[in-house]
Amino acid sequence: SLVMQESRLAGLFNPESVAVVGVSRVAQPTGGTAQFVMRLQAAGFPGPIYPINPQASTILGLKAYPNLRAVPQPVGLVIIGVPAPDVPPVLEECLQIGATNVHLYTAGFKETGRKEGIRLEKQIKDIAARGRLNLVGPNCMGLYVPAKKLISFGALPEGSGNVAFLSQSGGLAEDYSQYARSLDIRFSKIVSFGNGCVLDATDFLEYLAGDPETRIVGMYLEGIKDGRRFTALVREVNRRKPVVVWKGGLTASGSRAVSSHTGSLAGAEAVWNAFFEQTGAIQAGSLVEMAGVTKSLLHLPPPRGRRLALWGSGGGSSVALADACAREGLEVPVLRRRTRQELQSYVPIAGSSVRNPLDATTSLRDSELAGRTLHLLNRDSSVDLIVVNRNVGNHPEEQEHLKGLIDEVIGFCRQNHKVKPLAVALGSPSQDIPQQSRRLALSNQLARAGVPVFDSVELAARALSKWVGYYEFQRLQRGAGLLGQARLRHPSRVAS
Amino acid sequence: SLVMQESRLAGLFNPESVAVVGVSRVAQPTGGTAQFVMRLQAAGFPGPIYPINPQASTILGLKAYPNLRAVPQPVGLVIIGVPAPDVPPVLEECLQIGATNVHLYTAGFKETGRKEGIRLEKQIKDIAARGRLNLVGPNCMGLYVPAKKLISFGALPEGSGNVAFLSQSGGLAEDYSQYARSLDIRFSKIVSFGNGCVLDATDFLEYLAGDPETRIVGMYLEGIKDGRRFTALVREVNRRKPVVVWKGGLTASGSRAVSSHTGSLAGAEAVWNAFFEQTGAIQAGSLVEMAGVTKSLLHLPPPRGRRLALWGSGGGSSVALADACAREGLEVPVLRRRTRQELQSYVPIAGSSVRNPLDATTSLRDSELAGRTLHLLNRDSSVDLIVVNRNVGNHPEEQEHLKGLIDEVIGFCRQNHKVKPLAVALGSPSQDIPQQSRRLALSNQLARAGVPVFDSVELAARALSKWVGYYEFQRLQRGAGLLGQARLRHPSRVAS
Repeated sequence: SLVMQESRLAGLFNPESVAVVGVSRVAQPTGGTAQFVMRLQAAGFPGPIYPINPQASTILGLKAYPNLRAVPQPVGLVIIGVPAPDVPPVLEECLQIGATNVHLYTAGFKETGRKEGIRLEKQIKDIAARGRLNLVGPNCMGLYVPAKKLISFGALPEGSGNVAFLSQSGGLAEDYSQYARSLDIRFSKIVSFGNGCVLDATDFLEYLAGDPETRIVGMYLEGIKDGRRFTALVREVNRRKPVVVWKGGLTASGSRAVSSHTGSLAGAEAVWNAFFEQTGAIQAGSLVEMAGVTKSLLHLPPPRGRRLALWGSGGGSSVALADACAREGLEVPVLRRRTRQELQSYVPIAGSSVRNPLDATTSLRDSELAGRTLHLLNRDSSVDLIVVNRNVGNHPEEQEHLKGLIDEVIGFCRQNHKVKPLAVALGSPSQDIPQQSRRLALSNQLARAGVPVFDSVELAARALSKWVGYYEFQRLQRGAGLLGQARLRHPSRVAS
Repeated sequence: SLVMQESRLAGLFNPESVAVVGVSRVAQPTGGTAQFVMRLQAAGFPGPIYPINPQASTILGLKAYPNLRAVPQPVGLVIIGVPAPDVPPVLEECLQIGATNVHLYTAGFKETGRKEGIRLEKQIKDIAARGRLNLVGPNCMGLYVPAKKLISFGALPEGSGNVAFLSQSGGLAEDYSQYARSLDIRFSKIVSFGNGCVLDATDFLEYLAGDPETRIVGMYLEGIKDGRRFTALVREVNRRKPVVVWKGGLTASGSRAVSSHTGSLAGAEAVWNAFFEQTGAIQAGSLVEMAGVTKSLLHLPPPRGRRLALWGSGGGSSVALADACAREGLEVPVLRRRTRQELQSYVPIAGSSVRNPLDATTSLRDSELAGRTLHLLNRDSSVDLIVVNRNVGNHPEEQEHLKGLIDEVIGFCRQNHKVKPLAVALGSPSQDIPQQSRRLALSNQLARAGVPVFDSVELAARALSKWVGYYEFQRLQRGAGLLGQARLRHPSRVAS
């Protein structure tokens, strides 16, 4: 196995204490290093927190220390937020007191494109190598470990889960912690690692591969130091723990932005296309896609194929949805004759369609018919996946229907492995605030019940197509693996 | 000119009275033909409304008539909602009383794929031809003419405007009327024409070409009867009145759904690609795209090119946005040295970028700096378009900043033709209801001020790229037109 160093980073994610170097005496509501002390306090971090500031005796109710050497106990994690030129001496101090885990928040290194920044990044890299530091950063927001109440950024978690997220962007890590919470996705670990000049995605993935709390790994990447090692590792990990990768900077404009952001080398699109082909990692292009695939991986039974039954209302909408699904690589086959006949017993011929998309307003407005429809689609052998699409309108009666429909859907999905994978698209073409509030409330209800829910069929189809692709790749690999073995045996037989 | 029949449809859009045939005595809140009477009443249609029902004397407070012949006055528009087999005799009655304008709501014709439906559609087509009926439908929601208070569907309008929408889908016409209202797009006419078996998009476009109230034409199309005539007409109209076309059913699955929906022949994707290339019509793929392009056409000064300055906050977000813009065909050039130098006077080097995307949180948080930034981007000769991107967060202080920023942006855009085209992307990665409500309130404020506003930079870039493409095509055509004339003159000179 390529996964050798499970334990090297264990302390980083479970420090007994945290020192924060460079804490300003007046806490600023946004930014500043005081934020790290405040967040640890808000999260209820159980160990001691040591603010380091030579001009203060107390910060945020805690005893402050003039420097790291003055701290009387071992320091499990050092968060550094002093200006870039002052970082090297602080790192030397870490080496002196034997602190090996460092989150370097400070920016102003290689990503500035300036000589001084590039020189400084080289210098911290050298110090880290000499002291074998587990250095996260620079230019990053650090760690988010809900189970250990170790929180440097993002929404205060409501419990921990088994999804990990590695991000070269602190902003996107923050955004994802907020967004995922509203979708009921919970995290084992989030790491915002910025320039990744010492530890990078490969190192963190190695750790997560052996982390029993992590089942799914998402990443936002800008560059990779060792592409070969990373590719081999992702390929291996992805077999057991799905890896979802959003690679930023694949266009020329994006690539230039990557260099201004984390000083990384974005790499050519062709190289990354080959990476996805070889590893079977799931490619995402936004947090919405990342979350959509993750919800599907978490909650849906494995799919048998990519043939979708689309159940909604409205002819134009059916055409648009069929187009959208086809463009995302899902099939929308005609339903079996028997299914169509049974549907026709309660779906009128005029103004509806029982082929697929199933355009059948009546069936969505009556709980009993909705249940029957789900049963028929579930039984149809031409269908692998079900998507229910419903706009959230403003009519009070429609809202009652919608509640009934959602209860039926949740009841259906509760049977889990006995039924086909199902997702819901809840759209609304209006920007009306009460209407959108109702949509979000229903969406959150579905998310809490473990039903993947999307803002549109397009987004549902995109996520489901990528999700099915994961299983197809793994099945193909297992097939190829056996074939590979057969081929190996064959020549040896000939030789014997 | 190809536009010959301006007047033929004039009466259809301005009837002095409306008869509704097949009104049920008990009004149903959704569906049923009584809805048409109720909507005309709610909109305040000024002429008489005649409910036609042989079993009732009064319907919804109006005197009911047993049939069309019993109506004592001329009937400007007949809305028909009787079952499909009963439609032909009602059409014959229209001929008898000299009523030429018909909205045929009834479904159950060619789109069912059944012999009887196909036969009936042929029959109504023949009657319409014999009586030279202006027949809208069948299988459609009909007309939406705010200025005449003639409303068969959709949101009750808040005034009229100069955008027309032609739709083969009643659901999408309804959705667009709702959605556009929240974006402050107002309509001259919406026509939901379903199967389009008599009048189709070509006929309506011909009318709109000569309609002084219409400046922009949007369409949702499934099929076209006479492709050559339609293509020539769109090409001509598009020069004066931008034509935005969403063609449904371009995939195999979508094409099958088209046949179940309006019985149309969807046509091959290659044919439609050629249509867009020849006409310069703007292609949309959803109502969101249609609305985005329309807002840009309505409110922005014509662009000089497709070089975009992206102003936002967050390095990862900048990379993602640059990628998104590049994929949509917009350039994100490095800002001029002078601009970068001036920006650098208030944008810190660490954690920011003044190249492009401009990643500068400080400049977004201070109204004065925001104004200065807009001025610098406006002055930069490498920039044709400006997009401001801001996530709506939950922090009270951030909300204050955001209000200040939006006031600056609105003030900037008020200078209209003196400044570069600008759009705003207001995203929020959360499904949190209060946060989304705040986002929508800000979004609606911008829309009311005439600033195109989008839910994400991706959507902004897609709409702006299509919008710029419109002007590029027209410029190229004018150039080619001159060249074409030169070529024509040339041979004649040689011959003389």
